[in-house]
Amino acid sequence: MTTNREIHLASRPQGWPTADNFRLVETEVPTPGPGQLVVRNRFMSVDPYMRGRMNDVKSYVPPFALDAPLDGGAVGEVVAGEADGFAPGDVVLHGLGWREYALVDARGARKVDPDLAPVSAYLSVLGMTGLTAYAGLLDVAAMKPGEAVFVSGAAGAVGSMVGQIAKLRGASRVVGSAGSPAKVERLRALGFDAAFDYHDGPVRDQLRAAAPDGVDVYFDNVGGEHLEAAIGAMKLHGRAAICGMIAQYNATEPPAAPRNLALLIGKRLTLRGFLVGDHGHLREQFVQEMAGWLRDGRISYDETVVDGIERAPEAFLGMLRGENLGKMLVRL
Amino acid sequence: MTTNREIHLASRPQGWPTADNFRLVETEVPTPGPGQLVVRNRFMSVDPYMRGRMNDVKSYVPPFALDAPLDGGAVGEVVAGEADGFAPGDVVLHGLGWREYALVDARGARKVDPDLAPVSAYLSVLGMTGLTAYAGLLDVAAMKPGEAVFVSGAAGAVGSMVGQIAKLRGASRVVGSAGSPAKVERLRALGFDAAFDYHDGPVRDQLRAAAPDGVDVYFDNVGGEHLEAAIGAMKLHGRAAICGMIAQYNATEPPAAPRNLALLIGKRLTLRGFLVGDHGHLREQFVQEMAGWLRDGRISYDETVVDGIERAPEAFLGMLRGENLGKMLVRL
Repeated sequence: MTTNREIHLASRPQGWPTADNFRLVETEVPTPGPGQLVVRNRFMSVDPYMRGRMNDVKSYVPPFALDAPLDGGAVGEVVAGEADGFAPGDVVLHGLGWREYALVDARGARKVDPDLAPVSAYLSVLGMTGLTAYAGLLDVAAMKPGEAVFVSGAAGAVGSMVGQIAKLRGASRVVGSAGSPAKVERLRALGFDAAFDYHDGPVRDQLRAAAPDGVDVYFDNVGGEHLEAAIGAMKLHGRAAICGMIAQYNATEPPAAPRNLALLIGKRLTLRGFLVGDHGHLREQFVQEMAGWLRDGRISYDETVVDGIERAPEAFLGMLRGENLGKMLVRL
Repeated sequence: MTTNREIHLASRPQGWPTADNFRLVETEVPTPGPGQLVVRNRFMSVDPYMRGRMNDVKSYVPPFALDAPLDGGAVGEVVAGEADGFAPGDVVLHGLGWREYALVDARGARKVDPDLAPVSAYLSVLGMTGLTAYAGLLDVAAMKPGEAVFVSGAAGAVGSMVGQIAKLRGASRVVGSAGSPAKVERLRALGFDAAFDYHDGPVRDQLRAAAPDGVDVYFDNVGGEHLEAAIGAMKLHGRAAICGMIAQYNATEPPAAPRNLALLIGKRLTLRGFLVGDHGHLREQFVQEMAGWLRDGRISYDETVVDGIERAPEAFLGMLRGENLGKMLVRL
């Protein structure tokens, strides 16, 4: 097989993206130069932050280019190329997803152990999403044992980890919100003390019922009404780790904003935005602790897998609509 | 003189308070019991946070009671009473302002040195407002030398200290906003690198012109549009110390809220509300450093003084309207 298929950004979405914003392009399998590897991707990740990169605005990562392949986390097998420390057959994690074969600079690849966990786990529970949950909860929000935690988007890849890590680290109460009865059911099965569907009524009222004594930590994946409700529910010296605001990534108008920020003063609250890339110093500790929890069966993770590079846009759009349980992945 | 006069809260304001919400009441000068002091107040403080206490809502301090004297910071002279460590003639700082004579529990009084500074300074530059500026800037926002700072309400008691302390501690650029041309002029005289009148155009545009390279630290006294503009102007890893939101204390509708909170993520910003009461551990360091700056003539402070207990409501209302330069005080 000498044909490679990849997904290009055909046009920049206005508001919600559609299939028309993407294009499937056939190219040739690349030829490696010195220090380069050709990786046959097995899984690629679709993540909320990618929506921001489809806009042509300055941000913490440059925007995706038009008429060029998208990129993002992927894991696959080295099939060609020579570089110190790598050999054909190695399974590597790298940043050039959205294509079947990737030409990867060896410095941008990291070998992973396929015997320790299924390779897809390196894009989910043992990968960026797991570390995002771990670092946001324990470092950014500095959750301590005995504290109460609320996480929005709790059935997603990050949120489901946040809730479980909170319980394993001694949270007194963990509350999650999600977008369907099935997801709420799943949160209860994962050990959340309370969960609710945000379609069922104002978040503020549902959160008050689920955490009548308030919360110390809020892990925000959603923004907007969820953030306002969490600020209202937070106890003195509460901390919010702001990880995502998926409610507004596709907004064409300025989104609803919390009108109760004056509560930050009297309650001495902290809102802190973060990116996982700033917390790489926790990676070793995270992998060790998470691998132990996995080995002992103390943590569960969900993956929603879509097959085929041609369906990657569909997977991405479904993730934005919340159709995934746990981590949304594309198997190639 | 055996008559005491004090100001009672006659009714709870809806929106902006008026003179009708206050009542001047004549009582008798109190008689001290064991451990109590009678203090003839010389100066009393009027502060923005008092507006919140006029509402009947749960907050970090209990609401003022109706038909009872208001309270707040005051400094005066002990005229009667016996308590260890106090003698008639001592000048003390305490929490029972809004009256000419206060019956103070000695445990709630702190002796101050009238030779070190004018006694009013213990309510302003050397007192709670000075410490608020110091703690918010250096502890909450953790300003480092070389950073750029924006402070709103910069001609007020706290704001004018924030800007000057920032310069003295090595800020690369200090920008202030205020509400009149005279205040802007004063900020320039105090050493602010740039200052603007927020009536002159959108805060966002004026801030961009005043700090084209952005700011690392925002000290918020105002909230609303100022906070949104500051979030937009903040650099990576910027910190905002949220001290007050005077723009909305008298609002009867939910206030404008920053619609750009998603920037917290990509820029890894922190918004942190605080109350000076949590930062008492800095008091000694603060007094030492501030007294040195005062002695060396390196810091200036403004006081706007209104005479007579009967004019205390007028002073309070004027402060809410921003008629003061620096600290608003009532001389009794």
